[in-house]
Amino acid sequence: MNTLLLVLDLVGTFVFALSGAGVALRRRLDLFGVLVLSFVAGNFGGITRDLMIGSVPPEAISDWRYVAVSLVAGVVTFNFFPIIDRLGSAVLLFDGAGLALFAVSGTQKALDFGLNPIMAALLGMLTGIGGGMVRDVLVAEIPIVLRADLYAVAALAGAAVVVIGSLVQFPSAPATIVGATLCFGLRVMAVRYGWHLPVARPRK
Amino acid sequence: MNTLLLVLDLVGTFVFALSGAGVALRRRLDLFGVLVLSFVAGNFGGITRDLMIGSVPPEAISDWRYVAVSLVAGVVTFNFFPIIDRLGSAVLLFDGAGLALFAVSGTQKALDFGLNPIMAALLGMLTGIGGGMVRDVLVAEIPIVLRADLYAVAALAGAAVVVIGSLVQFPSAPATIVGATLCFGLRVMAVRYGWHLPVARPRK
Amino acid sequence: MNTLLLVLDLVGTFVFALSGAGVALRRRLDLFGVLVLSFVAGNFGGITRDLMIGSVPPEAISDWRYVAVSLVAGVVTFNFFPIIDRLGSAVLLFDGAGLALFAVSGTQKALDFGLNPIMAALLGMLTGIGGGMVRDVLVAEIPIVLRADLYAVAALAGAAVVVIGSLVQFPSAPATIVGATLCFGLRVMAVRYGWHLPVARPRK
Repeated sequence: MNTLLLVLDLVGTFVFALSGAGVALRRRLDLFGVLVLSFVAGNFGGITRDLMIGSVPPEAISDWRYVAVSLVAGVVTFNFFPIIDRLGSAVLLFDGAGLALFAVSGTQKALDFGLNPIMAALLGMLTGIGGGMVRDVLVAEIPIVLRADLYAVAALAGAAVVVIGSLVQFPSAPATIVGATLCFGLRVMAVRYGWHLPVARPRK
Repeated sequence: MNTLLLVLDLVGTFVFALSGAGVALRRRLDLFGVLVLSFVAGNFGGITRDLMIGSVPPEAISDWRYVAVSLVAGVVTFNFFPIIDRLGSAVLLFDGAGLALFAVSGTQKALDFGLNPIMAALLGMLTGIGGGMVRDVLVAEIPIVLRADLYAVAALAGAAVVVIGSLVQFPSAPATIVGATLCFGLRVMAVRYGWHLPVARPRK
Repeated sequence: MNTLLLVLDLVGTFVFALSGAGVALRRRLDLFGVLVLSFVAGNFGGITRDLMIGSVPPEAISDWRYVAVSLVAGVVTFNFFPIIDRLGSAVLLFDGAGLALFAVSGTQKALDFGLNPIMAALLGMLTGIGGGMVRDVLVAEIPIVLRADLYAVAALAGAAVVVIGSLVQFPSAPATIVGATLCFGLRVMAVRYGWHLPVARPRK
């Protein structure tokens, strides 16, 4: 189970790092800027989660594989950007997968550290969306996470499955898989069908 | 005393969360964006303070009431934005009250954790202004805190009262109230009379 | 050795704080905005490093000298901005010196806390570049660090020297000095000769 989570966690880091590198390239940053945004997008969510639950140094800093995966994503994007950019929808799929996985693994980790269920789900959501938020702040944009179709709601739904599974003492492996699948499915459907949360009516 | 502080702390979170939701609505964010900015504006200052003094997990994450209060503020603002927007000066008053309370409660907490007096006052100020700073960064604006009339100076004045009270071993309850009143009064007067700190002269 | 590091660390804080104050003045912020950006630019990198290695409260909060040095830099810049602005290249030199010192001292501190060598170098680099990144984010700009000539690469080179010195059990004082000199030299040469990292080719 833990090996599965680690593999999926690294895959999530990789695809989020791809998104960071893509944003950096569209802003014409140099190679280093690309690598920094790759690392930030892939790891900031997890670092914040680890700091908040008192797990220091954060995994992204103490385990070299997170850095390695982020740098590989940055270099690959740097060299093959036109191709990756054309595969835009593939990246969206990967990104949804990363969101799903980070949300459930973040929730699980928070539960393991003894947080109460509601807070664990909240931290799981934060793990999923944190990297993308800072990525966008660093290029002086309003985070897409704050505006995208059901992005964080999908993360919250996945986290909720893990939390409820834990409350009813369901084995954590299948709960994690169901939660991740729900989050991924919601996000993909939202993108495909343009599902939105309501926006407040403008004033007269 | 601690119950009083908790109540006032939650009131402060609520009014700051209102300000976050208001900013989000002016930027046409959807319901989730509104809720995230509510939470960030209401809790980021306290989270930063708790991380810095090593009190993990931060209260805003471990005590569900902070989240609940933030979400209520977000939903209320989302549904009644035109009304709240018209009560602009009322919100300014609440915001000043929140600033005042966070500044003194943050200072008190830092003193309890053994920080030296100057640093405790600085952390108290940070608790008061941190949420608003990140709120503005997330919508890609220069934080209003950096430019508003006596905003942080008022917070620092309130924090200083708490610190001096602690140094001369004055009971902490009245010192807290005096500090909060001073901060609130300074901020309200600054808004009403347009008090400013100096701005450097431009170059020829 | 530790006294030397402390002195150099404070000098680094001072010159980075100068840069923060300069950015604030160009944006027409008032005196408090200037002081906040001074503190942030001078200390954010170190605070992040300390949070990540679990050294709380961070030095910048527990040792008053870091605050004092930052405020002095802010006040000096506020009063003598036209002169400092004209000494632009002098500030660039100081800034390179600060970067060099923070990179090596951050790496050394991370090694002392038991991080593995690669992560220690990464954290050293972060210590060097963190303050400037947040400084620019607070004025809603893409951090210059992400775009400047060899800025972070120079920091990484200096950090690498410290790490390699530690691996071969070289005494840390000379390794620190060689690392700082290399970083400073690379940065100065990059500015003077316009050395760049590659930028990805635009799409057709």
